[in-house]
Parts: sequence; C-alpha cells; structure tokens
Amino acid sequence: MRSIWQTGIAAAAVALQLLSAMPAAASVKGYRQANEHAILTELAGLLAIPNVASDRENIRRNADALVAMMEKRGLKPRLLESSDAKAPPVVYGEWRVAGAKRTIVLYAHYDGQPTDASQWTGSHPWKPVLRDKPLYAGGTVIPMPQPGEKIDPESRLYARSASDDKAGVMAILAAIDALKAEGRAPAANIKIVFEGEEEAGSPHLADILGRHKALLKSDGWVIFDGPAHQSGRVQVVFGARGIIGADITVYGANRPLHSGHYGNWAPNPAMELSRLLASMKDETGRVLIKGFYDDVEPLGEAERRAIAEAPQVDRELQAALGFGQPEGGGQSLLALISQPSLNIDGSKSAEVGGKARNIIPTTATATLDMRLVRGNDYRRQFDKLVAHVRAQGFYVTDREPTAEERARYPRVAQVALRDGYNAERADMDDPFARAVTDAVRHAGIGPIVNLPSMGGSLPLYVIRNTFDVPSIMVGIANHDNNQHAEDENLRLQNLWDGIEAAAGIMTMTF
Amino acid sequence: MRSIWQTGIAAAAVALQLLSAMPAAASVKGYRQANEHAILTELAGLLAIPNVASDRENIRRNADALVAMMEKRGLKPRLLESSDAKAPPVVYGEWRVAGAKRTIVLYAHYDGQPTDASQWTGSHPWKPVLRDKPLYAGGTVIPMPQPGEKIDPESRLYARSASDDKAGVMAILAAIDALKAEGRAPAANIKIVFEGEEEAGSPHLADILGRHKALLKSDGWVIFDGPAHQSGRVQVVFGARGIIGADITVYGANRPLHSGHYGNWAPNPAMELSRLLASMKDETGRVLIKGFYDDVEPLGEAERRAIAEAPQVDRELQAALGFGQPEGGGQSLLALISQPSLNIDGSKSAEVGGKARNIIPTTATATLDMRLVRGNDYRRQFDKLVAHVRAQGFYVTDREPTAEERARYPRVAQVALRDGYNAERADMDDPFARAVTDAVRHAGIGPIVNLPSMGGSLPLYVIRNTFDVPSIMVGIANHDNNQHAEDENLRLQNLWDGIEAAAGIMTMTF
Repeated sequence: MRSIWQTGIAAAAVALQLLSAMPAAASVKGYRQANEHAILTELAGLLAIPNVASDRENIRRNADALVAMMEKRGLKPRLLESSDAKAPPVVYGEWRVAGAKRTIVLYAHYDGQPTDASQWTGSHPWKPVLRDKPLYAGGTVIPMPQPGEKIDPESRLYARSASDDKAGVMAILAAIDALKAEGRAPAANIKIVFEGEEEAGSPHLADILGRHKALLKSDGWVIFDGPAHQSGRVQVVFGARGIIGADITVYGANRPLHSGHYGNWAPNPAMELSRLLASMKDETGRVLIKGFYDDVEPLGEAERRAIAEAPQVDRELQAALGFGQPEGGGQSLLALISQPSLNIDGSKSAEVGGKARNIIPTTATATLDMRLVRGNDYRRQFDKLVAHVRAQGFYVTDREPTAEERARYPRVAQVALRDGYNAERADMDDPFARAVTDAVRHAGIGPIVNLPSMGGSLPLYVIRNTFDVPSIMVGIANHDNNQHAEDENLRLQNLWDGIEAAAGIMTMTF
Repeated sequence: MRSIWQTGIAAAAVALQLLSAMPAAASVKGYRQANEHAILTELAGLLAIPNVASDRENIRRNADALVAMMEKRGLKPRLLESSDAKAPPVVYGEWRVAGAKRTIVLYAHYDGQPTDASQWTGSHPWKPVLRDKPLYAGGTVIPMPQPGEKIDPESRLYARSASDDKAGVMAILAAIDALKAEGRAPAANIKIVFEGEEEAGSPHLADILGRHKALLKSDGWVIFDGPAHQSGRVQVVFGARGIIGADITVYGANRPLHSGHYGNWAPNPAMELSRLLASMKDETGRVLIKGFYDDVEPLGEAERRAIAEAPQVDRELQAALGFGQPEGGGQSLLALISQPSLNIDGSKSAEVGGKARNIIPTTATATLDMRLVRGNDYRRQFDKLVAHVRAQGFYVTDREPTAEERARYPRVAQVALRDGYNAERADMDDPFARAVTDAVRHAGIGPIVNLPSMGGSLPLYVIRNTFDVPSIMVGIANHDNNQHAEDENLRLQNLWDGIEAAAGIMTMTF
C-alpha cells in the first residue's frame, strides 16, 4: 500500500508544478489527494470530543483543540467570550494579507445537537467510525485507513457533527493548509469564526459579535453549514426565511362536560379551533389571512432564474416521503419556500383513542409557525394573524382569559407570541454574493445549485444588524447525513469538495 | 331527644289511621317521617362497603348485604349470575301479588365509579359522613343523628354511591317497608333488579337478562338512577340517546418534516383534519353530514309538549358553566338533546406549547362521538360519517393505511368504529309510561319534570331487545351530587322524595 501512497505524492508534486499558474482549485485537489489520511485523522480527533453546547467542560475542550489547530497553521487564534462567562466561546483566527482591501469572514460551528448514544446503530456519537457505505444501504464498519492507503470517497464517517458542522470547520482549515502548502495567499483578509452554540439557538452570538465589532469587520460572511442539495450538488444559498410562532388556545365551558347531556349545546373548543385553523388556508395551501403576502419583496431576475435552473427533485422527494399530493397548487418546492408560510406544528384538545372520554373539552390548543421572507416583519405578520382570529369572531387575549371574559364573549382565543425574527437574504447580484457563487462554481467540483433562500430559518439577521454585510451559505455535507438525529455521517467526497469550495472562496476577488 | 322520636311515632300512627283510605303517598310520607333514622342508618351501613365493580371481593360483600336486606323484607332474594363467574351478580328479589295481572321491574345499581380517596375533602368515599349543607356552600361534618333526633332534610350524606345509585336501592327498599308497615300490597307483581357493574358499562347485563328471561318477564322497567332535574324536581325520563364513536386519523409524510424546508409543500395532516372536522358542522352546530338527520323519528305531540313545559334552566346553566354562547342557533338544551349530535371528544397532532417543535406532523387524530335518537341506526350513522369523509376527497380505510396507500392517494384517513348502540325511548302515550308519570306526579312530592329522553346514553336497548318492554327512568338524586367525582353526596330530602315516588309506582294501576 505504501507504494501507492508514494506514487500519489509524486503525482501530486508533478501536478502542482504544472498547475502553479491555474486557479487554486486544481492544486487544492492535488494537495487534498495527497493528504486525505492526515485530514481524515485530524477530523476524527476533533469528532472524538463530545460537543453539546450545554456540556461546558467538553465544549471548552473543543475550543482548546481548535485553538491548537489554528496555532499550528499560524492563524493567531483567540477565544471571543460572551459577557456570560458560562457561554461557549467563539474561536477566532485570522490570515491577514498585506495590501488586501477586502475581508471575508468564514463561519462554521463546532457544537452539535444533543443525542442519545443508545439510539446509535453499532457505533457511538463521539467515537468516530468509517463505513464502506451508508447504513441504509447496508454499510459496515471498516478499519480507519493506514497512512497512504487509498480511501474510497464513497465511504462515510459516522459521528455526531461529522457533517453538522465539524465538516465545515475541517473544510476551512484544510483549504488553508492547501493554500499554504502551495505558498499562495488569499486575495482578501480571512477571518475565521467558529461558533460553539449554534445548535442551542446561538443565544450569545449577537452579544459576542457586538463586543468584537471592530475585530470582525468584513465585507461579507460565508457560512459553511448545512447540506448539499438533494441532487448531490454543493449549494450556495443567499438567505434564510425568518420565523414567528404562536400558541392559539380556544375556550369552552369551565369544566369538561358530558357530551350526551350537553353536546349540541355547550360550545366545543376543538371544533371551534378546527374551524379557525381551516379558515387560515385554502385547499391548495394558500394562506387566507388578510394581507399575508402583501409585504413580500418580489424576487429579482437572478433569483427567479436560479430557482428555474435548480435541479427538480420534488418527485423523488415526494416518493421518499411517501405522501400522495403536495400542497401549493402545482408550484415547485423551491418556488413555495420562497414565499411566507403558515404551518401547524401540533394541536391538542383533551385525549384521543384509548384515553378519550365522551366529553366536551374545555380548551383546544394549536401551535403554529410562520416562515417569513424578505419584506415581512415578524411582529407585523403576527399582528395579521391576530387580526384574522378577531375577524373570525373571537375575542383575543395574549394571556389566560379571565372567567369573566370567557363568560362574556361568544368566542374566546388566547394568541400568544413565541420567539421570532425576520428573514435575511442577500441579493444574488451583490458583488460579494456573485463572487462566492463564481468561486464555488469554478472550484472544480462540478455544477452547483444556487438558491435565493433556504426554507428553514437561521438568525442571519444578527450579522446584518451588527455589520450590515451579506452572509452567504455554502452547503457541502451529503443531504442524507442524518443531521440532528442518531447515526449522523459524512460522505468523504463531500468533505473533499468542501475543501476545494473553501479554497476557491478564499482566493476569489470581488 | 327520645321524646321527640316517640312523639313522631305516635303522630305517624295517628296519621296512618287517618290516611288508610288515601293513596299510598301520604301514608308513605308518614312512615318515612317516623323512620328517617332507621332508613339513614341502613343506607349508611350499605355505603360503608366499597363498591367498585372490579373489586370482586367487596362487590360480593355488597351483594350479600343486599340479599340480607331483602330477606328481612321477605323479598325471596337470589343472585343472578352471568356465565362469567367473575362478573358481579344481579341481586334479584320479588314481591308477588296474588291475582295481579301486571308486573313491574324496579332497577337500581349497587356499584359505583372508581374514585381516589385522596381527592375527597375531609371524608372517605366509603366512610359516610353527614354535613349540614353542601361543601360548596361551606358545609361541615355533623354527627350522625341519634334515634328520634330531628334530621334536617337539607343535610347531605357524603359517600361514594350516596346518590349514584345506592339512593335508588334504598328508595325501593324503604318504599316496600312503608307499604308493608301499612299492610298494603302493590297493584302489580314487583320484581327487583340490583345490578353490580353499571358503572363499568354493564358488560354482562345482556347475558344475565338472557339467562333469566322467564324470571324477569314484566310489563315494563322503572330505572331508579340519575339525578333530578336542575330545577330540583324529580324527573321522569322515557329514554336515552344511543351512541357511536369513531377515531379519525389523517396522514401526511412518513416522517416528521422540518417546517421550514418543507412547509407550504408537504401536506399538513393537522390542517387537513381541521378542514375535515370543520366541514362536519356549521357555525350554529348543525351537522352537515349528508342525511345526518334523515332517519330521525319526529317527536309526538306529548313529547313536544313535555319539552315545552319543562323548566327552562339554560341561562343559569350557561352562567354556571362560564361560556359566552351556546350552539344550536337559539334552540333550548332540551330541544337540542332530542336530536342526533356529533361531538369532538379530543384531538391530537404532534405536540403543542413547550413541547412543540417546528415540524410538519405525520398524523392527526380526532375522537368523535355521535349521539343517536329513535330512528337512527348506529351502523348507518357511522356509514354516513365515512361517506362524508370520502366526499371530502379522502381515501378511507378502517385500519392503519399501508405505505403504498399513503403514497397513492392525495388524502388518506383511517376511520375506526368504536362501540355503539341505538337509542331507546318509550312513547309518552304508552300506558305503562303514562302510569309511571302519573304515579310520580301524584306521589305528593310536588311538580315533576317529564322528558322524552335524556341527552346521555344508556344501554336500554338491552331491555328492549330481551323483553320488548319499555324502560322509564326516574331521577331522584340532587343534580349537584358530584356524580362520578370525588365528594359525591345525597341531599336527604331527595331520598325522602325518592321513597314516595317508588311507593307511588309500586301501587299504580295500568
């Protein structure tokens, strides 16, 4: 096996000479091919440190390990602390380039979702193992490769955060290695932000950014997080939807009533809630709340084109998810997630099935979330919801109604606001956004998917509010990575592609 | 105190002589007034025996006590067993009258609802205590009266089954004592049926009646069970609604989906269920299921008049229950419970409030009950429900749908039948029914309430199917008796009235 390893190095060396005048990607690929074993070993070491944000001791061990990894690369690391000393720190590093007029922040997070080790199949969340293929395809554990041994790019590394998001951390650091090995410098100053509590909802991110505003000044952020597109292509995404949630409770009599003695007469809150919820959307899924779509900023030409050009995977997705008909009146998933939405997260009134009794329940509750796009304001969207509930004849309160209120009004609803924030989306025509797209597109990793926004929500507004710069997300992990669940995994080719994408972004000009 | 007691007895003796030519009631009242202490003592003794149907040892102790109580009265008791030896027996007794051409069955039940002793306020379910007034009015425990001591008829006996339904048992047995003390015989043969598992749903009643069909032959049953009217008047009720239940589950994707990435596109079963439920009733509560009211046998003249003449308590009830507007478009509670109904017992989809996550749930379930009136068939009513679900575009199955079914049909619902049975209601013009009404009306206990049917359900069809005779319910317990809950109680005047009503029925002619 040793000879193959050496042949690889020799080939890479020849390639490096040939490609010294070419863009970074080609040579980065050579570096990576020659160093797969070292990269994989370094990543596996990082994955062996438990990384739940609330596990203060271990999360500090992660931060310390990252400081050491940055030191080794000359990135002048330091920990950026929150005003809350218990919060996981941001691990910061930088590569300043003499004469560079631009600055890019590269972001990834080193914490992972909490997980129950007993739910994992044949391995442990913080004891990384390699499998020859995915578990769902019958993959079995294979030995970690020896130095120089050829590594199948289809093999998968199983561990918590293998993909979400220590893959992002490793892609950035290995790309720096590749550039340094080549003796090349980025075109812009590079600042690195590794967050330690993204999976806990980034409760201290705004605080940390605010405390280090000057240090973190830049022309734009690139967020290495999230999966590649379902088609397998790396995706570059220019925003995320905002979100606002609400708990709606509807009230009936002040005690559960015998449905025989009082049914047809005493009001049934489960029925009233059903009617209220049904009034909110038509059969195609279009939201009927007055003015719901009014504030939406229309997508530009570039955004519409990007959606039209993205691979269509709706049919395959629907087959995998096993349902018979999507909402949306024939619009594609991508078109639909570019609009504001209203979703029922759950509903409950008394009990069902074996626990049910023949009663008229006293209350019925639904929890909703509404996703927002650019132009929406989360407080305004919530107000529209409240106005809709009023328009259906409900007296609306934001707390538990009093007995007097319940007795006085024909229909009573409590509508309680949950957390919310606005959408954030960079224009695709923004020079920084365009540069990132071009850099990933020409990174030598094949065609990419370009999307105006993801359907989910991220607090990107924190970056916009603090620095007024765009944030662009680059999703590299395999989409079937079991993100947030047990048996999280990373397909190695996705990491290799991520390294080339990161190097491409670092060397871009804009 | 002894002197008062003896004065009472003397007065009663005089009254008996004076009233020997009058209807039974007046003299029954005298007997009761002279024997309140003995009646109360005997009832308290019976209430001291725990009486949950599933508590086999204690339920047999109750049956044995009742046998002894019947022996003492010469009622030739026997236990009627089910084919399931574990089932509580019916305690049967009889008072045959030479030459009588008619036979009446008097029914009550000796079991009670299970209860948690720790939930009781200052007393124990099976350690009866007397209070000077109801707990909710600040009632406090008073000593059990000494023989001859005057007993306040507003005082209340607190114990499990004090009202439901050992009050019925005691009313029947004390009425027999009164008649016997007077040397009077009923006009018809009297058969007594004390059931031991009514609160468990009477699972063996049909079996026991079928096994003793000849023994239990009669012209009609009088069911001493249930409360008096909310106005305080004893009520005579000619039937009960039937009931049929259903669990409806609606399906979405085969796993919970991120509401941001898939919301607006993947179907939301909680929304689909809301729409389906909302389609079943209009805003006034009228059921929109096709043909829902078609089979209803219209009420006769006597029934309509009885409803019109019943005391109107809707406004007071609504105030006590604390809601702002009843269903029914202005119809009264009594008019509404004479119609078939549809009620949501409970609903559930994923989680709400603090437990909610931003997901699209995979399923949503509602449990419904439908009450039936004469003319409805419970299987036909269920079929109408299923047809309605189909008409809303659902593929309907009666079991968990397969993955293939879920993938194939735009909307999928499982509609599972729960137990059901038909309504049973005697004509008010039926001679037996009229005789019972007249007997109670003239029992000397003031005006009564006469209702065609109660809103709740009882398996009266078992009696109709086995014997083809009517069953008439006589409700004597105070309506605020905390039936089925902790702190169950009996207002003594209600027991006194019940004794006179029972004696009136035993001596009626028809």
